[in-house]
Amino acid sequence: MHRIPVGIFGASGYAGRELCALVNAHPQLRLEYATANAQRGETTVLGGQEVTFVATEDAPVNQAELVFSALPHGASAAWVAVARGEGLRAIDLSSDLRPGHTTEDVPYGLTEVARERLRDAPVIANPGCYPTAILLSLVPLLARGLVKAGSTIVLDAASGVTGAGNSPKAELMFAEVSENYRAYAVGNEHRHLPEMRFLVGSYGTDADLLFTPHLLPVARGILATVTVQLSQEIDNPLQLWHEHFAGERFIEISEKLPTLRDVVHRNAVRISVRKAHGLRAPTLIVLSAIDNLVKGAAGQAVQNANVCLGLPEAMGLPL
Amino acid sequence: MHRIPVGIFGASGYAGRELCALVNAHPQLRLEYATANAQRGETTVLGGQEVTFVATEDAPVNQAELVFSALPHGASAAWVAVARGEGLRAIDLSSDLRPGHTTEDVPYGLTEVARERLRDAPVIANPGCYPTAILLSLVPLLARGLVKAGSTIVLDAASGVTGAGNSPKAELMFAEVSENYRAYAVGNEHRHLPEMRFLVGSYGTDADLLFTPHLLPVARGILATVTVQLSQEIDNPLQLWHEHFAGERFIEISEKLPTLRDVVHRNAVRISVRKAHGLRAPTLIVLSAIDNLVKGAAGQAVQNANVCLGLPEAMGLPL
Amino acid sequence: MHRIPVGIFGASGYAGRELCALVNAHPQLRLEYATANAQRGETTVLGGQEVTFVATEDAPVNQAELVFSALPHGASAAWVAVARGEGLRAIDLSSDLRPGHTTEDVPYGLTEVARERLRDAPVIANPGCYPTAILLSLVPLLARGLVKAGSTIVLDAASGVTGAGNSPKAELMFAEVSENYRAYAVGNEHRHLPEMRFLVGSYGTDADLLFTPHLLPVARGILATVTVQLSQEIDNPLQLWHEHFAGERFIEISEKLPTLRDVVHRNAVRISVRKAHGLRAPTLIVLSAIDNLVKGAAGQAVQNANVCLGLPEAMGLPL
Amino acid sequence: MHRIPVGIFGASGYAGRELCALVNAHPQLRLEYATANAQRGETTVLGGQEVTFVATEDAPVNQAELVFSALPHGASAAWVAVARGEGLRAIDLSSDLRPGHTTEDVPYGLTEVARERLRDAPVIANPGCYPTAILLSLVPLLARGLVKAGSTIVLDAASGVTGAGNSPKAELMFAEVSENYRAYAVGNEHRHLPEMRFLVGSYGTDADLLFTPHLLPVARGILATVTVQLSQEIDNPLQLWHEHFAGERFIEISEKLPTLRDVVHRNAVRISVRKAHGLRAPTLIVLSAIDNLVKGAAGQAVQNANVCLGLPEAMGLPL
Repeated sequence: MHRIPVGIFGASGYAGRELCALVNAHPQLRLEYATANAQRGETTVLGGQEVTFVATEDAPVNQAELVFSALPHGASAAWVAVARGEGLRAIDLSSDLRPGHTTEDVPYGLTEVARERLRDAPVIANPGCYPTAILLSLVPLLARGLVKAGSTIVLDAASGVTGAGNSPKAELMFAEVSENYRAYAVGNEHRHLPEMRFLVGSYGTDADLLFTPHLLPVARGILATVTVQLSQEIDNPLQLWHEHFAGERFIEISEKLPTLRDVVHRNAVRISVRKAHGLRAPTLIVLSAIDNLVKGAAGQAVQNANVCLGLPEAMGLPL
Repeated sequence: MHRIPVGIFGASGYAGRELCALVNAHPQLRLEYATANAQRGETTVLGGQEVTFVATEDAPVNQAELVFSALPHGASAAWVAVARGEGLRAIDLSSDLRPGHTTEDVPYGLTEVARERLRDAPVIANPGCYPTAILLSLVPLLARGLVKAGSTIVLDAASGVTGAGNSPKAELMFAEVSENYRAYAVGNEHRHLPEMRFLVGSYGTDADLLFTPHLLPVARGILATVTVQLSQEIDNPLQLWHEHFAGERFIEISEKLPTLRDVVHRNAVRISVRKAHGLRAPTLIVLSAIDNLVKGAAGQAVQNANVCLGLPEAMGLPL
Repeated sequence: MHRIPVGIFGASGYAGRELCALVNAHPQLRLEYATANAQRGETTVLGGQEVTFVATEDAPVNQAELVFSALPHGASAAWVAVARGEGLRAIDLSSDLRPGHTTEDVPYGLTEVARERLRDAPVIANPGCYPTAILLSLVPLLARGLVKAGSTIVLDAASGVTGAGNSPKAELMFAEVSENYRAYAVGNEHRHLPEMRFLVGSYGTDADLLFTPHLLPVARGILATVTVQLSQEIDNPLQLWHEHFAGERFIEISEKLPTLRDVVHRNAVRISVRKAHGLRAPTLIVLSAIDNLVKGAAGQAVQNANVCLGLPEAMGLPL
Repeated sequence: MHRIPVGIFGASGYAGRELCALVNAHPQLRLEYATANAQRGETTVLGGQEVTFVATEDAPVNQAELVFSALPHGASAAWVAVARGEGLRAIDLSSDLRPGHTTEDVPYGLTEVARERLRDAPVIANPGCYPTAILLSLVPLLARGLVKAGSTIVLDAASGVTGAGNSPKAELMFAEVSENYRAYAVGNEHRHLPEMRFLVGSYGTDADLLFTPHLLPVARGILATVTVQLSQEIDNPLQLWHEHFAGERFIEISEKLPTLRDVVHRNAVRISVRKAHGLRAPTLIVLSAIDNLVKGAAGQAVQNANVCLGLPEAMGLPL
């Protein structure tokens, strides 16, 4: 059976390795090359098959039909352009082509929101991990115009350390992270804010966003705690999410509050919602959990590849 | 040298054991009895000295001059009343005597705020762990009337598992907590909310509180992330905290964001603050870290005992 | 397509839940019932399908063709007997039917060693988790008579907390286990020793075993460190394991030392070996890692079910 | 009051920082300088006081009376020689001056064993962390000639990650260490072996040593599991350790098996012992726990400084 040949740029980071594993386990994709400059020549087993990294400049780019780029921010766009010049489709996991980071009009691949724009798209900007968890928790409210005008949506979220990559850094050593917890990029300083502002704004709301990320002593997973003031009371908020995401296989709405263990190693978002008691302003707290490396990166990238290649959307994705 | 005899009710939990250790290491206090019904007869070393638990009903209550009660909520108030009937001072670590839980007018022992009311007080309600971290981060704004009228203060906080006590529960087992993270009591359902509302309200603000606690895979420590809208812009917010808490030995204000490792095993609150960029409403994010068992429980209780007994406030407390 | 109906006794523990998940994901098995007395009536999702526990006494035992029992030691044998009385095949994950615990001659299901005896077997005693890791690391030496006569084989091993079950116990709480490590059952007191003595002895060696287990602050995984004196020098010891286990899909021999992360969530044993330098007695250190819930329990049980039912041995097993 | 001025070479690693904290908290020592080439100019709070690192070549070496060197192996001996040339006493925490690494006759500072040789010693080789835990567990047997002639003592031990230093390395990142466990330096390859062989041999036994270290997912602590064959049966082995170490303040002998949590942040060794049942050769398993940074490094160094300076041995040490 013919499998579609796929390349991966920047395959040695956590997201890149997860991509290698997913592509190797995918019934219709075949890993043609995986690049990693510092690890060129190294062989490792990912998804049950051996992968040998090559330097990006040595990759046989045009032997693939689609390329995933998990290169670092700043380095990715140029290689995506090379691939597109060779006629490949490209899915960019860096922030280079996301809204707010480029003037180019590239579809923003939050799959459940943008699905129709992604079919046959030559290039897709894969969302950041935090935005994936946060935006999917907000879209049902945004689509109905239920966010209070002029309000600030408070986005507190916490991520496992793989979100920070696998380059050795002092602040990511076990002895610094274990039994510890801290916020970072406080005051709206995080790179993921522009794409969230863009998507929220695209629904016509004028609400502001305030995003405070935190570093958890876990390897994988993001939990977002989203506090949002409403334009009106909602009787049964959970029902709203159920209706909006009816039929979505990767979005799990539940009365039970989500935990990281519910979603790690799966291409799933799990969402729950509670009304805030005792406030004058009608307010919801939406909780949303994902695996930052799967639905927050490599899983959603493969989901987007499936959509743009016309394959079944769930093909090769762990549920 | 004479040491003041002290009793501890409910000494076998995490806060109770920390109290035993602090009292045993305190140069002016002497542990007269430590009660624990289920562990009666057991001997353990705490603070370098052996402690043998007795049943609460068997304790020689009146041989102490002051009693700490770390009994469970609901069971504590009655034993505090017994101790007071015998002429002892009492410091209650349960919520029974805190604002919102009783009609009795008991001083609320957030030491740095209530110090003068605590001198010679016959009974003190020791604050909850979350309120200690959260309220100390807000007081400088509240005292100057800088919180925006009608706004909601968003209180997201995360605690280590010792905050949930040491009774075996399925959801606190290592295999459930490690590599996991979740919110709980979402929607303003937490027992610590009334005391926070009371203290915030006592400053004359009408702001609402929305409190969302989370469970961290760490043993000790609380980090609070407090988002607060201001009635006016503040040029140098950190300066406000420096000024308000000038001379306070247990409050550490820093430009660097606080982490749990900065404060564990110490009777300290570490606070930092950032302005939110890109919002129309002037907004601050205040970060505050404590050890839930020290400044959030046993340490603050000893600090309060020092104040009410006329001892140096920092005596016997780890810094 | 016909699937073979399967029952699970004692399905609510860690091994039982792993069994439910594996059976639900198995292409030729169908979960007919799953029993759990304390959790009767509860529904949970395992292996992508909902499972509702029933009381063991209410289970439609004879509607299955094969039953796995993950009931506690002491309670399991009687229910296995009930199932056999109804004509079912049975695989017992408890120690009740293992060598040294019964006088009955039940095949001991260390698959790679006993495969031929397991085909069509009416009942199989599934090995303990520690013995699985330890025995597979020793068999190549035992089979060649290379263990020094009269020596003591030192078996130090460390396990994650799921090996101790999911009943809430004080010593398994997160706050006790994290940042901690300890030995237990020291001095040859562990329940898994008889089956190891039996299997080692069956190869005709008179070597003694000394087994010291330890509790690791991880959820899953066992690493065994086996020190064994040889009857003669071996030039290339790794080659011995390669040869002995040639063609075995679930046994991975590598020069690189095994880690828990190499094997968790997989039905694999990973083994490496080193010569001890500077000793007069020729001595090897064999390192062996498994997931205690997969190859050490539920995975090997399904592997054994595949063998005894005549299915492909690797069917439905995660690699 | 006069305090003895002390310098620290290599003060920015984990052991160096622990030394700074201990010296700053010591009632009779004063930190005169602390060197760290890469961190020169950085200021940090250690032991409640600010420490500003200087380059080692810029340190006012002769303004101290004693220097601790926590420089890396290979770099330390030369700076210790410089300090001795200036007339300072020196305590070297590296392996450079330990038995087996130098031909110089430097006292090996396992305090409880070598105390008399350390008084007024101009230079002391501070033991490695593993040897401290292991040797103290063996000395009572060695001193009585109870180790079986010609036997191999099996030394399995596990350490927290701070034992590997605080330079960023891929294999010490949180995402690699958490939920993981592995052996390393297997086959008697560890740098700590020569000093253990030396000390064991100094008691006249001809027993061989086989040392297998492991890496634990904890920040601090070592547990050693020592299996030793005896020349004769011992009725009450624990009594032997009690007698041998009678009066030692930092050695805790207990029936209860030691855990890391028993000893972290304390200058203590906790030891227990069990007889092995069911073996022909009389065999003991000795368990021994320390904090690798305290009794295994900085704490024992200060203990040695106290001895060599004629101060009370326990001064300034956390118990």
